[in-house]
Amino acid sequence: MIKSLSRVYEQFRKLPGIGSKTALRLAYHIIDMSGEEVAELARALVEAKKETRICARCFNLSDEELCEICRRPERDGRTICVVEQPQDVAALERGGKYGGVYHVLRGVLSPIDGVSPEQLKLRELVGRINDGNVREVIVATNSDIEGDATAVYIARLLKPLGVEVTRIAHGLPVGGDLEYADGLTLSLALENRRKM
Amino acid sequence: MIKSLSRVYEQFRKLPGIGSKTALRLAYHIIDMSGEEVAELARALVEAKKETRICARCFNLSDEELCEICRRPERDGRTICVVEQPQDVAALERGGKYGGVYHVLRGVLSPIDGVSPEQLKLRELVGRINDGNVREVIVATNSDIEGDATAVYIARLLKPLGVEVTRIAHGLPVGGDLEYADGLTLSLALENRRKM
Repeated sequence: MIKSLSRVYEQFRKLPGIGSKTALRLAYHIIDMSGEEVAELARALVEAKKETRICARCFNLSDEELCEICRRPERDGRTICVVEQPQDVAALERGGKYGGVYHVLRGVLSPIDGVSPEQLKLRELVGRINDGNVREVIVATNSDIEGDATAVYIARLLKPLGVEVTRIAHGLPVGGDLEYADGLTLSLALENRRKM
Repeated sequence: MIKSLSRVYEQFRKLPGIGSKTALRLAYHIIDMSGEEVAELARALVEAKKETRICARCFNLSDEELCEICRRPERDGRTICVVEQPQDVAALERGGKYGGVYHVLRGVLSPIDGVSPEQLKLRELVGRINDGNVREVIVATNSDIEGDATAVYIARLLKPLGVEVTRIAHGLPVGGDLEYADGLTLSLALENRRKM
């Protein structure tokens, strides 16, 4: 393989979810693109990195000092939904039902990966609660070992502050087929059953 | 989604084999990379496009006037293997058994996509045969409708020039399971059976 091609191949290989075959196909595709198109792609990458800021309040991605959600006066500041990553904010916003604000931990507790509470935006979360009129914190970390452990940690941390701490519900996904649900999801769905 | 992020998302979406979920994950990953890493990725893209040339003889990708294969004196110039794309050269070279040279058509005949013989490097292929001592042309276009039609076209074009034209063999892939082979491959494998 010629040098310039293998260099771009190696770069693609480093991206998450890109295997060697996809990286190779992408590398050849770059050669087939016009110089202008390649320049535009390269520019979008550099600018995305350069122009993206972190919201000073909730640590979501932002293009200003405060993110779009924190800037909106109609969002209810009394409810904070705690998530691991900015992409979780985007996912919840796609749901379109949540009217509160967010707090992005920028990670999850993980002793194996050496992530301790100090590395998450927990002090800042406590600060927001101490500052004002927060009534409920909904913990929407992922439902895996790290996410659950982080949720328990946050509940213990915040309860003494007199705020209600809730966990997002787990159960069958809407449209999901009982037959294909895993055992853990099914037991949670049974446990969390509601009166009709 | 913030503007700089959605711009890089749109760029990723345009790449082949990148769906909307992968594009989104990649866009967020770019934000998580260091500025230096992003700059390196962007530079690799631009340089791959800028530095990659087309071999003046066989139209393979190259970093000089002639590609690495055409430059090697030990490659047998009497046998030309005709392929559709530069990536096909790379695939055949991975096999490691072929000692001849290549000719990259840079496309395949396709009336539907409006690709006619003049748009392929066929005149140049005829030129190479007229120039010298080529004895055999192995047509290794893909075994789909367009690739087969192109192979037939090339055979008709070259036979009057007194050169032997052969087609790469089709059959069961090595390690392939009879059970999972498609019907067309199986009929070709039977048709092309060899004495043991």
